[in-house]
Amino acid sequence: MEAPYIVIIATGSEITAGRSLDTNSGWMANQLFELGWKVKKFIALPDDPELILTELQTLKRFSETRPVLVLMTGGLGPTEDDYTLETVLKLSGKKSYSVEKAKIRLQRIYESRGKQYSDILPTVIRQTHVPEDCKTLDNNVGIAVGFVEPIGVDSYLVCMPGVPSEMKEMFTRRLTPELKRIYPRENLVQKTKWLWNIGESLYQKDFVEANRERLFSEVDWGVTANRGYIKCIFQSTNAEKLEHIVRELENQYPKIISDDVFTYVHEELLAKKLTIAVGESCTGGLLGKKLTETPGSSSYFIGGFLTYSNEMKESLLGVSREILNQYGAVSKETAEAMVKGIFEKTNSDYCISITGIAGPDGGTDTKPVGTVWIGLKTPDGSIESHLYLFPGNREGIRENASNTALFLLYQSLKQRIV
Amino acid sequence: MEAPYIVIIATGSEITAGRSLDTNSGWMANQLFELGWKVKKFIALPDDPELILTELQTLKRFSETRPVLVLMTGGLGPTEDDYTLETVLKLSGKKSYSVEKAKIRLQRIYESRGKQYSDILPTVIRQTHVPEDCKTLDNNVGIAVGFVEPIGVDSYLVCMPGVPSEMKEMFTRRLTPELKRIYPRENLVQKTKWLWNIGESLYQKDFVEANRERLFSEVDWGVTANRGYIKCIFQSTNAEKLEHIVRELENQYPKIISDDVFTYVHEELLAKKLTIAVGESCTGGLLGKKLTETPGSSSYFIGGFLTYSNEMKESLLGVSREILNQYGAVSKETAEAMVKGIFEKTNSDYCISITGIAGPDGGTDTKPVGTVWIGLKTPDGSIESHLYLFPGNREGIRENASNTALFLLYQSLKQRIV
Repeated sequence: MEAPYIVIIATGSEITAGRSLDTNSGWMANQLFELGWKVKKFIALPDDPELILTELQTLKRFSETRPVLVLMTGGLGPTEDDYTLETVLKLSGKKSYSVEKAKIRLQRIYESRGKQYSDILPTVIRQTHVPEDCKTLDNNVGIAVGFVEPIGVDSYLVCMPGVPSEMKEMFTRRLTPELKRIYPRENLVQKTKWLWNIGESLYQKDFVEANRERLFSEVDWGVTANRGYIKCIFQSTNAEKLEHIVRELENQYPKIISDDVFTYVHEELLAKKLTIAVGESCTGGLLGKKLTETPGSSSYFIGGFLTYSNEMKESLLGVSREILNQYGAVSKETAEAMVKGIFEKTNSDYCISITGIAGPDGGTDTKPVGTVWIGLKTPDGSIESHLYLFPGNREGIRENASNTALFLLYQSLKQRIV
Repeated sequence: MEAPYIVIIATGSEITAGRSLDTNSGWMANQLFELGWKVKKFIALPDDPELILTELQTLKRFSETRPVLVLMTGGLGPTEDDYTLETVLKLSGKKSYSVEKAKIRLQRIYESRGKQYSDILPTVIRQTHVPEDCKTLDNNVGIAVGFVEPIGVDSYLVCMPGVPSEMKEMFTRRLTPELKRIYPRENLVQKTKWLWNIGESLYQKDFVEANRERLFSEVDWGVTANRGYIKCIFQSTNAEKLEHIVRELENQYPKIISDDVFTYVHEELLAKKLTIAVGESCTGGLLGKKLTETPGSSSYFIGGFLTYSNEMKESLLGVSREILNQYGAVSKETAEAMVKGIFEKTNSDYCISITGIAGPDGGTDTKPVGTVWIGLKTPDGSIESHLYLFPGNREGIRENASNTALFLLYQSLKQRIV
């Protein structure tokens, strides 16, 4: 069978008005990518039954020429502006019926809240309805039932709730097995590596273009730019070819390559029972925030100092006035003195300091906006410091600086093992 | 002139593969809403010139029936998978030329990096190209020039870079005046108010539905849910009606209403020359990060303490072991002792402490996940503390807590004036 032409539709006026961000479509595309399919188009539409119907009619006509898979989220809720069921019934000319299992579940939920069946609003009961003759997708999280409506030869319209937790559970547990059955596909393998402080286009030229013929047959590649690093993604049904590419990438970029540093740092600090503390100037708490994002981080994150002003660098971390006057707050000497101060106050295995110029003001000829010093004290007691000139605006520089600090920590943790 | 049928297109395989989230389209829809226009459709397409061309051809044909405005981002970069210019030239049958001003700017950028004009790759120079006979949109942030290509009667295709900082600057400074000229519109007035720790649907039922007939003729409304607060937006050509609605809203929710607290706090602390310092436990630096997001924050933000562990609460902020043992780290007593400690170490006008359980573990029957104490020391020396039970996951609770801390600061600053 020809690969399906996949379109993802998100409905909701809050999306097209820019009041809320559609995260469902990207999440589904990611899941589909792992199943080996690429999405041809995302569409977002307001809660307007005519616009939705027109779009679905166009896609149904298109399914006369090739297999089409449409995944639609939203519009299955209990409010007056939820139009999905009504629109699909118009599209198909079918009637709907209430799914018995879902009705009983709804009744139980109401009873558990001390309410009766008669209390349930008709628009809430509507959520248990699906078109006749279609595959239903149970909802274990919320009320609305999803469904898979055939729209042509090997072509389907999947309707799911827009609430992310409901959609994700339904997609993973109910839809994925169904999709694997409808569109069987060989297993894909995927590898992701990160490269630090290098541009997308340079990577593409030096690695992808330079090695296209030699390495990239049977292999798909993608790249995502992030703050401080790019994610290089490779995908193939041939696992050996993937291994080969990753080895070549490691050979070409030994000093700037990493795995997911956020995950690695968390797991290594936990596994090795190491502790960490920070001292932040221009990042104002962003590094601490990143280090405490993952549950369980209290096992290794001791604490930190937000020494935004010179006075605080002196009084909290003991950076001497001489150093501040002679070298300035953004200097190797200050970064290293901060690290020493963090260690004295916390006795942590790792201590990281960040001091820099996030801008837009405060830059000079010798220290332009983006200049950042990062200090690192490792468990063996040695202290190092690194100078960077990060691109971007204030937010970008702060993100770059705190991510790069985590990369330095990653490298140090990695060396301890090798 | 009939209102334009507005479609926003985001191109980029990283979007349709789910590797990166399209935030541009929502941002533009928001800007357009403020200009008085609603968007009919978002589309995201992979970097596939055929798919992009087909979509643009369909929209061009559609512009024969009514005015159509297409806003497209992405595909203007320097890599081989940037197809926007090529596709638009195919669509229009035009040729392109290099915009002199942009070429000179590019040359200067290269020279400032010690490189020569001959070093510039052809794909980079391509970014200065636009189709003949169209309005160009200067790029003050990056290299790629944007443009407005006529595609029919009162119909236009706008192409802008996908890098958010470049697109936003170009949209605000270059495109908005152009749009106002092309599609003149009666002046809309807009008011935005924030309500804290209240659900969207409750607000909708208690304020919008309850007052629909009395207050909402000639007025559009919208609501955005955020972490800790909702933004209530009202829009009308009738300024008096807007004033009236806002007064009624203030009457109905006197204790939880605010303006944009981030802006207000920044401006008031600057204007009143007041200083602030923080002590964070469960938020791990997020409050400090938020307080230092705006340039100029070094005038008021002194610094802070990330006292994630009990030991640090003791050693850095002098919270006594008795308090920690008797009341626990998440308690009124600890929050207030932290605030005292921050003041002793920094002498700041305002001191804020946050201590809570961000989860997913660590909750108990009496202190479930989401329990957060926020302490506040005001310039007159008084200390208060507030207990919250925030909903959501770890990230949500941390965002809620730090935003609510800023709301408490807002309220205190507001009282000083009245």
